[in-house]
Amino acid sequence: MYKSAIAALCLSTCVTGAMAQDLSSGKWIDLTHSFNADSVYWPTADMFTQTEVFAGHTDGGYYYSAYNFAAAEHGGTHLDAPVHFAEGAMSAEEIPISQLVGPGFVIDVSAQAGEDPDYLVSAKDIEAFEAEHGEIPEGAIVLLNTGRASLYPDRESYMGTAARGAEAVADLHFPGLGLDGAKLLVERGIGAVGLDTPSIDYGQSADFSTHVELMTNNISAFENVADMSELPPTGSMIIALPMKIEGGSGGPLRIVAHLPQ
Amino acid sequence: MYKSAIAALCLSTCVTGAMAQDLSSGKWIDLTHSFNADSVYWPTADMFTQTEVFAGHTDGGYYYSAYNFAAAEHGGTHLDAPVHFAEGAMSAEEIPISQLVGPGFVIDVSAQAGEDPDYLVSAKDIEAFEAEHGEIPEGAIVLLNTGRASLYPDRESYMGTAARGAEAVADLHFPGLGLDGAKLLVERGIGAVGLDTPSIDYGQSADFSTHVELMTNNISAFENVADMSELPPTGSMIIALPMKIEGGSGGPLRIVAHLPQ
Ligand SMILES: [Zn+2]
Ligand SMILES: [Zn+2]
Repeated sequence: MYKSAIAALCLSTCVTGAMAQDLSSGKWIDLTHSFNADSVYWPTADMFTQTEVFAGHTDGGYYYSAYNFAAAEHGGTHLDAPVHFAEGAMSAEEIPISQLVGPGFVIDVSAQAGEDPDYLVSAKDIEAFEAEHGEIPEGAIVLLNTGRASLYPDRESYMGTAARGAEAVADLHFPGLGLDGAKLLVERGIGAVGLDTPSIDYGQSADFSTHVELMTNNISAFENVADMSELPPTGSMIIALPMKIEGGSGGPLRIVAHLPQ
Repeated sequence: MYKSAIAALCLSTCVTGAMAQDLSSGKWIDLTHSFNADSVYWPTADMFTQTEVFAGHTDGGYYYSAYNFAAAEHGGTHLDAPVHFAEGAMSAEEIPISQLVGPGFVIDVSAQAGEDPDYLVSAKDIEAFEAEHGEIPEGAIVLLNTGRASLYPDRESYMGTAARGAEAVADLHFPGLGLDGAKLLVERGIGAVGLDTPSIDYGQSADFSTHVELMTNNISAFENVADMSELPPTGSMIIALPMKIEGGSGGPLRIVAHLPQ
């Protein structure tokens, strides 16, 4: 009765796929890997470090702990802001919240990606999803579940190599979003797209055409997203809030999903 | 008609003050200061730095920009996790999302704090708010509006001194939450409490008794929250997602408010 009443209200007032969710009840799923010394970074990027400033009992009689941290913007569960691959496009602090929060559309390509470490999610995959679940609406947050989150942070299995440095880049193997898939999502007017690999372009990409296609259209990407297996294809609300780095090309992202029950 | 129907549903299904909000419509207010070289840090803490890795056109034919960053956990708009002042309490990655998201209760003490830079928000202030707006419910996110956000990041006016180093700490002057106020919020079972100053204890605190009271009860604090003047006393939904630093005593926080219209 309660659910159908809300659904009826939504028929006239909500965008397709959106639901008025009471965030004070229901269920939260954290789609974020913790930052630590094992966090996955690009072979050429600085990794995450945390250093203790103080941790213990003070002369003042109270306990106190505090740390410093440092990292590249692109590692762990993180945002790619449009300016990462598009000159003059939005940087991390400029992305409207309305493009970072929206109904979740979760496309499961884990069967295909499990067979092929260089799998490219195609427009066909997205259209097959839409045939079953309806057209992806404007403002949707699209998540591609390649099944790789369970391998994180073992770099060898997760991204094809545990080696570091420029010479390791040629050995990267992991699934990504193909250019025709990116073009279809741009057409749909989605808010953002995320996946559970280190990059929205697959490991073997040399031209990063998917990044360029999305970002010249001011669409952000979420990378190294954590396990999505508890998410339904539709019906979740995704909230993805990045660290607000001024001029940032990206940065640490906290991404969570809310389910109505 | 739409609003009253939702409200009627809420009478039986929502916690006091909570509303089923459609996050795909309504209005977002960002309560987060951007991180940059001017971000406000404690006089003894490392400040935020951002260094360019690359920004420009590549040999591959595409544009690319990326940066590294480093900072103390406690500066800019940030989280104090309970372990910051309570041994064995929750660290940044351990705080349940349900304690970071909830109905906003915004207590305006800007008149009192405008007269007294060492103002302590008291249990009396909170009770006066409750007399007008109803008792603060379990899981609420309580925000104290001292009016100081408009002075950020001018350290002299915002926190009493622009000096850096241990000798500057004695010159800190800014409002905070008094111990009796903290005790009342613990009693209410709130999710978290935030304010628009550098610390939940006032600038002249030596024993940090408010931090200790909140954090031994596993309640987090949000500090250097940005301008709250657009927030109503009740009716907003606050979403505060910290960077997920494993073992972190706190860290960068993205805090936003959603209003139903
Ligand atoms: Zn990236
Ligand atoms: Zn702090």
